[in-house]
Amino acid sequence: MTQKSLRIAVVGLGTVGAGVVRVLQENVAAIAKRAGRAIEIVAVHARDKAKMRSVDVGAYEWVDDPLSLAARVDVDVIVELAGGEGGMAKALAEAALTHGKSFVTANKAMLAKHGMALSALAEKHGGSLHYEAAVAGGIPIIKALREGFAGNDIRALYGILNGTCNYILTEMRTSGRDFPDVLKEAQAKGYAEADPTFDVEGIDAAHKLSILTALAFGVRLDFDAIDITGIRRINAKDIRFADELGFRIKLLGIAQRGRNGKIAQSLEPCLVPVDSAIGSVEGVYNAVCVEGDFVGRAMLEGRGAGEGPTASAVVSDIVDIARGMRLPAFGIPHGDLKEAKWAGPDEISSEQYLHLIVTDQPGVIADVSAILRDSRISIETMLQRGRDPGQPVSVVITTHECSRAAIRAAAQKIEDLESVLAPPTIMRIQKF
Amino acid sequence: MTQKSLRIAVVGLGTVGAGVVRVLQENVAAIAKRAGRAIEIVAVHARDKAKMRSVDVGAYEWVDDPLSLAARVDVDVIVELAGGEGGMAKALAEAALTHGKSFVTANKAMLAKHGMALSALAEKHGGSLHYEAAVAGGIPIIKALREGFAGNDIRALYGILNGTCNYILTEMRTSGRDFPDVLKEAQAKGYAEADPTFDVEGIDAAHKLSILTALAFGVRLDFDAIDITGIRRINAKDIRFADELGFRIKLLGIAQRGRNGKIAQSLEPCLVPVDSAIGSVEGVYNAVCVEGDFVGRAMLEGRGAGEGPTASAVVSDIVDIARGMRLPAFGIPHGDLKEAKWAGPDEISSEQYLHLIVTDQPGVIADVSAILRDSRISIETMLQRGRDPGQPVSVVITTHECSRAAIRAAAQKIEDLESVLAPPTIMRIQKF
Repeated sequence: MTQKSLRIAVVGLGTVGAGVVRVLQENVAAIAKRAGRAIEIVAVHARDKAKMRSVDVGAYEWVDDPLSLAARVDVDVIVELAGGEGGMAKALAEAALTHGKSFVTANKAMLAKHGMALSALAEKHGGSLHYEAAVAGGIPIIKALREGFAGNDIRALYGILNGTCNYILTEMRTSGRDFPDVLKEAQAKGYAEADPTFDVEGIDAAHKLSILTALAFGVRLDFDAIDITGIRRINAKDIRFADELGFRIKLLGIAQRGRNGKIAQSLEPCLVPVDSAIGSVEGVYNAVCVEGDFVGRAMLEGRGAGEGPTASAVVSDIVDIARGMRLPAFGIPHGDLKEAKWAGPDEISSEQYLHLIVTDQPGVIADVSAILRDSRISIETMLQRGRDPGQPVSVVITTHECSRAAIRAAAQKIEDLESVLAPPTIMRIQKF
Repeated sequence: MTQKSLRIAVVGLGTVGAGVVRVLQENVAAIAKRAGRAIEIVAVHARDKAKMRSVDVGAYEWVDDPLSLAARVDVDVIVELAGGEGGMAKALAEAALTHGKSFVTANKAMLAKHGMALSALAEKHGGSLHYEAAVAGGIPIIKALREGFAGNDIRALYGILNGTCNYILTEMRTSGRDFPDVLKEAQAKGYAEADPTFDVEGIDAAHKLSILTALAFGVRLDFDAIDITGIRRINAKDIRFADELGFRIKLLGIAQRGRNGKIAQSLEPCLVPVDSAIGSVEGVYNAVCVEGDFVGRAMLEGRGAGEGPTASAVVSDIVDIARGMRLPAFGIPHGDLKEAKWAGPDEISSEQYLHLIVTDQPGVIADVSAILRDSRISIETMLQRGRDPGQPVSVVITTHECSRAAIRAAAQKIEDLESVLAPPTIMRIQKF
């Protein structure tokens, strides 16, 4: 090694933090060759010093106050894997970037909330902000968008960004069971948190989408501009109907720019063709598709979470830093990130899936059809499987392309019909 | 722009060269923002100056002798898109790198043959060699291996590296037609060359595999170490049998390191599970799967060829150069690339598919079974569809794991049986 070593401090030694230490220990020689110099862990911090860990951190200086790392001249890079959108993580990011350090994080919640401020801070003080691990774990999608597709005008991106939800949806399909049942099993297996809200309500995936959107379109990150729907309302019948219609249900983050230049950002369960690339991504896998004007459609698929994949992503950032790569956090100078114009629900169109629970009696379909006709929504297919006069039955309708505003308004009117027994389930049909 | 512009010369203005000019013209502003400075085409060269082109190159200096570009102080980067494994392309690469320039190429044939010499030359004179476009067009697999998975010890990689072959195999399956027929159609549509040898014999894909192997495993590139089988012998019956057994046939480049440290490099049609990620990659798409010790399995999929995807990859290299990234050509210092130990046919094991054409008469299966038993190869399934006493019929056998050497020796013995009418078709079954 002709260059001096890159000195890093690791803050947070949970699953991912321990994983990063493990990668740097186990593959030390190969990583040094690739990085062009040694990567040296000089200090670590975690909430609980006494806790038993799966890696030995005894050789590294234990720091009680992580914020003290920011000013240390013997620390080049601070790696934050403690989590939390504010609190210590944010204070550490601010301190590190203010001191012109390179800051590596897997913290999507913090980036979704404070990404713009941190990007500005990095630029102002000559620091750099790296977050490959914040989105889709082992998949190098940040690097692909920031560098690999740098020649393209990105038209759209969409992805499966939460492994827990994709696992649940896959299990529901293969086992035929309902959501609560599969969720319980996922929790028992450690694939879902005790409080699954962040995952199943789509918040976690939306955090990631907000980051990808900013990077892909060169706009200011805006988490609040995402129209978010989770997967709680999807039931075994939806899965079966989708199957019958030739689709899989996937929780997708979608960002696309229309001809009017407006960007639509949404996070919602969608029906995608069973034989599409994204439709065949199953279980805990994540995938992101990118559509660029020259590259066409490209898809990256891999494990979205867990110790190994996330640590792999963190280390790729560290190697980039060792190699001297310090790019603007969102690919272009901070001041060039534009305030996006976000498309409203009347400007986002797609085919739609509508699942109604109705009383099985003459006239219901006629009433529903009339509402759709009056809303200028045209029906593509209608399915009613089984008869049970006077009892609740499922009716599924798919429509030709219509706006999100139109289908929502129509669904409201349909819900008001006496023979309709529950709020309709609406899902976007996305034929990529 | 605070930095001065990056000045490039484009040599070769065919499909890809014209595409690169088009990308740099159409997305000029966005690319400059991402690159941190303007990218300026200062000179161009092609074989035929008078030829009509789809892009306007009138604004750029036309150079009659491309080699003269190497010494010019007003040229920072030479982009070679002329092709050919030797000749002008090689002379240009050598001249550019000897002058310490950055050299960008899509020329896999040249890299497969001269990659090591060019890598050494780049390092010696402080130049840099970039070739994202040489493998799998729009897929940023070079960047992913060199940077994105830099924390990992790569255990295996495998991929669909030739769009022409994947298109032919997909068409054969969906239409039920035979190879010569589908090839003819692919040629008519422009998906296959008039002389399709390079594609259908697997040479083109093997060129790409040799590059990926060197990069993934940190070894010296060795095209000659690849065991190559093309797709000419695959017929409609193989496709049907594979389907019945739950597989798709894909021409795969595979490189994997065994526990003994030896690397097996092969390019061959394989049976892969129909519901595997790689099994669902259809038509002209390429895909590369990487298995790393921490990242697990990741797959990148996209268009492997054509003007747009290839130009997109070339421009990503140019943007990298503008941003100051100059990494060793194969990810680590040239002298650190080890001479690989290549696995022999007795050290590569997998399940196997065997397709025999036999005379439909009693005793044939017994003879074949006896040969396999004596070769210590155990049968998993045997299929014979239809009866036609005294006439040729197909028998398909799948085996449990056995070595390539063993199955080849057994196939030779089977071929020698009087009732066996043609050399058996052997294909690897690869369950990823």
